[in-house]
Amino acid sequence: MTTTDLGLPAVGDGSGLEPDPRIYAEELELALRNHAMPLEGLRYPVTPTGLHYTLVHYDIPLVDPDAWQLTLDGAVQRPLSLSLAALQRRPARTLRVTLECAGDGRALLSPRPLSQPWFYGAIGTAEWTGTPLRPLLDEAGLGPDVVDVLFTGLDRGIEGGVEQDYQRSLPLAEAQHDDALLAWAMNGQPLEPQHGAPVRLIIPGWYGMAHVKWLRAITALNEPFAGYQNAVAYRYSQSRAEVGEAVALMRVRSLLAPPGIPDFLTRMRIVERGPVQLSGQAWSGRSPITRVEVSTDGGASWAPAGLRSAEHPHAWQAWHFTWDAATPGVYELLCRATDATGAVQPVEQAWTARGMGNNMAQRVRVRVR
Amino acid sequence: MTTTDLGLPAVGDGSGLEPDPRIYAEELELALRNHAMPLEGLRYPVTPTGLHYTLVHYDIPLVDPDAWQLTLDGAVQRPLSLSLAALQRRPARTLRVTLECAGDGRALLSPRPLSQPWFYGAIGTAEWTGTPLRPLLDEAGLGPDVVDVLFTGLDRGIEGGVEQDYQRSLPLAEAQHDDALLAWAMNGQPLEPQHGAPVRLIIPGWYGMAHVKWLRAITALNEPFAGYQNAVAYRYSQSRAEVGEAVALMRVRSLLAPPGIPDFLTRMRIVERGPVQLSGQAWSGRSPITRVEVSTDGGASWAPAGLRSAEHPHAWQAWHFTWDAATPGVYELLCRATDATGAVQPVEQAWTARGMGNNMAQRVRVRVR
Repeated sequence: MTTTDLGLPAVGDGSGLEPDPRIYAEELELALRNHAMPLEGLRYPVTPTGLHYTLVHYDIPLVDPDAWQLTLDGAVQRPLSLSLAALQRRPARTLRVTLECAGDGRALLSPRPLSQPWFYGAIGTAEWTGTPLRPLLDEAGLGPDVVDVLFTGLDRGIEGGVEQDYQRSLPLAEAQHDDALLAWAMNGQPLEPQHGAPVRLIIPGWYGMAHVKWLRAITALNEPFAGYQNAVAYRYSQSRAEVGEAVALMRVRSLLAPPGIPDFLTRMRIVERGPVQLSGQAWSGRSPITRVEVSTDGGASWAPAGLRSAEHPHAWQAWHFTWDAATPGVYELLCRATDATGAVQPVEQAWTARGMGNNMAQRVRVRVR
Repeated sequence: MTTTDLGLPAVGDGSGLEPDPRIYAEELELALRNHAMPLEGLRYPVTPTGLHYTLVHYDIPLVDPDAWQLTLDGAVQRPLSLSLAALQRRPARTLRVTLECAGDGRALLSPRPLSQPWFYGAIGTAEWTGTPLRPLLDEAGLGPDVVDVLFTGLDRGIEGGVEQDYQRSLPLAEAQHDDALLAWAMNGQPLEPQHGAPVRLIIPGWYGMAHVKWLRAITALNEPFAGYQNAVAYRYSQSRAEVGEAVALMRVRSLLAPPGIPDFLTRMRIVERGPVQLSGQAWSGRSPITRVEVSTDGGASWAPAGLRSAEHPHAWQAWHFTWDAATPGVYELLCRATDATGAVQPVEQAWTARGMGNNMAQRVRVRVR
C-alpha cells in the first residue's frame, strides 16, 4: 500500500529521497509526535523523563498492566507466560543507559531521506529498572539451533507498504548479554506510556530501535529474523533497494549544550564576550570515550576538552571546555569524540539512503557581542 | 535584531507569513523541541507527564531549587521573598487543569504564520499542586491603584528583535482568582524542568502562555503591562502591525483520538468495517461543555456524541461515539463542541496573522476496509 493508495498526495518522487531543504507536512506531523531532547538537556547526567527523546512508529498502545502477559516461546523446551507481578518478583537491577535514535541527524542530509526528520537531540539517558533477560531464557531452555531472539511489541501499523506488529530481533549472544533487561521503570517510576509501559527491552549499546517497547512476546528462532524492521528499515545502504548492512550499536558521538541565549525562531545563540563555559556529553555503543575535542573556528583547529571518566559503562560521559570568546563576531562551534577502539566522529557525514547512524560533529552558530 | 542580522538566511519575506505548504528548517527545529501530545493521549483523563505538550520560547533554565527565591513586589505595602521550602509550608491544593497552546493549529492556516508550526495536539491535562496565589497577594498588601500583576520567568532570549525575560501579566481580578496557583508539582511529582521547575503559575481557563514557568518574580503594577508577550506576541489581528485583541481564555474545542492503525509516514488511519468506537475530549476556557457532535462524512451531517459531565471544572470532558463503518472507502471524521455560553467550534478557521486561538473542527481521514 503506497501513500497514493491511501488517498493522500505522494511524498517526494517515490525514491524516499527529497533534495529540497524544506520539509513536507507528513514529516512535520512526525516531528510533532516524536520529540528530541532539547540540547540544554545535556546539562542533566540523567535526563528528566519528559525530556528524553521518543520515537513511536505507530500509535502508543493503551495497555492494562493488570491484564498484560509476556510470552516466551518458539524454539524453547518450556514456554513461559508471565504477568507483570510475576516479572517484578524476579531479581531487579537498575542500569544507567544512553539511548539514541538511529535516524538522528537524518534531516541534515542532502538529499534528505523521508522519515522522521531529526536534526539533533534524538537522545536521552535514564535509569532503567528491570529483571535480567538471560535467566528467563535459561529457564525456558533454548533449543540447540537458536540463532536469533525476536521481540514483539503491542504497537501495530503500516510501514513501507507492510502491515506489521513492531518486531526486532537480536542475535543470540546479544539477547544473552548480562545487561539485557526487561524494564518496567524509568528514573524510579513506572514506565510512562510513550516509553513502553508496562515493560520494554533495554539492550545497552544498541540504537533505540532494538529496545522494543510494549513487549508482548519473546520468541527463540532457529533462523535469522527477516522481518521489516531488521531486513528493510534499519540498514546502512546507498539506495532503498540495496540490502546493505544492519544498523546495530551506537556510533561514537558527542553533543554540546548551545551556550548563551537563543533567538526564538532561528535558535541562533548570543553570548557576551569573555570566557564561555561549554559543556556536553559523549558516548559510543560499547566503548568508553577517551577524548573529546572542540573547535571554535568551524573545524579549522581543535583543542582537547576535559572529560569525565565512565562511571556508568552504558551512559554518556560529561565533558567541558572554556572558550575564550574575546572578539565579537559570528563563530561556528563543533565537538567530536574518540572512543577506546580509536573510532572518531567524522566532520562530514557519509550519506545513506535511510539516514542512519549519522554521527558527524555537531555545528552550533554563536554570535559573540 | 533580525534573522539576517544573526547571520542566517531570512525566513519568508519578512511579513511573518508563508503561503507555501512546505515548512522551513527553522520551524522544524522548533517542532522538534516543542512537542505535541500524540492524539492517542486523549484516551487518558490525566495526561502522563512526558506526553503533555510543551512550548518553551527560549531555553529551559537550569535552576537549583535550594537557591531559588520568588519575589513579590512592585505596588505592594510589604514586599515578600520566598524560598521553595517557605512556599511549600503554605496551604496546598491540587487542581486538574487542561492547558492548550494558543498557537495550536497554526500550521493548518494559509498563508501560514511563521512560529512554532503546530497541527493538532498542543494540549494536555494534569493534576497541578501548589499554593493559592491570592493569600500571598493579600499578605503583601496590594496598593489601591494596582490593575495588573506581572509574572516573570527565569528564561531569557530574543523574540521579534526584542531581548527579554519571558514576562506575562494578568488583570488584577484574574491574579486574584481563587484557583490561581503557584504550582510545584505535576501529577504528584516535582515539576520536571520543561514544565517550569521549581515553580510555575497555573491560571485555569487561560491559554498556556499565561501559565508562566520558572517563576522568579511577581510584580504588582499600577499601569497595564505593555511588554512583548502581552502587547505584541499573543494577539488576534489581521496583520503583524495591527494591535488587535489580547489572547486570553481558551476557546471551545474538541479533539478525537484517531481510530484504527496508522501508516508510519502519512499517519493515514486504517479501520476494519463494522462498528468503530470513537472517543475524545472537549473543553472551553471557563465554561462546561454541553454538546459534542461528530460527522463521518466530512461535515455534511452531524450526530450527537455521548458526553461526560464536568467533574473537574477546569479539565476536559470525555466524549464517545459509535460509528457504524459499514462500507469500505475513505472517510473524513470531524468533531465539534458547544459550551454552556452557546459558543460552538467553527468548521472553517478564521485566519489571524499570528495564528492564535484556532479552534476549528478537527479532520481525520480514515480508510475503512
